[in-house]
Amino acid sequence: MEPRLSIITLGVADVATARRFYEALGFKASTASQPTIAFFTAGGVVLALYGRAALAEDAQVADSTSSFSGVTLAHNCRSETEVDTVLADAVAQGAALKKAAHKAFWGGYSGYFADPDGHLWEVAYNPHLPFDDAGRLCLP
Amino acid sequence: MEPRLSIITLGVADVATARRFYEALGFKASTASQPTIAFFTAGGVVLALYGRAALAEDAQVADSTSSFSGVTLAHNCRSETEVDTVLADAVAQGAALKKAAHKAFWGGYSGYFADPDGHLWEVAYNPHLPFDDAGRLCLP
Repeated sequence: MEPRLSIITLGVADVATARRFYEALGFKASTASQPTIAFFTAGGVVLALYGRAALAEDAQVADSTSSFSGVTLAHNCRSETEVDTVLADAVAQGAALKKAAHKAFWGGYSGYFADPDGHLWEVAYNPHLPFDDAGRLCLP
Repeated sequence: MEPRLSIITLGVADVATARRFYEALGFKASTASQPTIAFFTAGGVVLALYGRAALAEDAQVADSTSSFSGVTLAHNCRSETEVDTVLADAVAQGAALKKAAHKAFWGGYSGYFADPDGHLWEVAYNPHLPFDDAGRLCLP
């Protein structure tokens, strides 16, 4: 297996509603999107939105009521100020602020919002992790 | 918000155990990894492993028993044969086969495995989505 993650798919209650939320945040839907699925280029990975029940069925697992998914997504910013701006914008677009931004124990600054389906996004500034020209994190 | 997803973090029962699984699959841990967290470059995104309870605490949400997370990850391959190989290798490394690979309604070929913490990976060949030189999907 080549060490690559190609797509992350979020199960959502309504694809059109979720798509509008991500478009409002600045994501641009691919023309490959359809009413039942939306695709966005999200830096070096594809972010997809698909009906939660259909996603469970596709993976042949039982759906369940939504609770902590055990998965978080992170959007890394270039400054603390940008973290504040992104969190405020997400909330203005209908996200729920789960954790106000504050200095983190690892030396950075971060907060969390939940998208309308409860998927958790950490918005973070990490002074130890530089970006490449395309905005992707450079791990040592 | 720039349309980027920087990191996806999987909550796991034991970071060392989960790290060994992903290393066995071919992922190379960054030297930024620590006993409590592991980082891997996974194409254009960072894959991280962190204790599930600690992750819930970090996001300030209640932890819960593991069930369908509403999130799937996909590893796209260059052929149907590669899908079979990757699924077989994952199972050999301790993954659970959730759905044997078969022709999909969207014209491709895919199956699913669950990692030792239940996180779902679809392994797929999609003839409609080309790769760039770095192995990242090119959306239209």
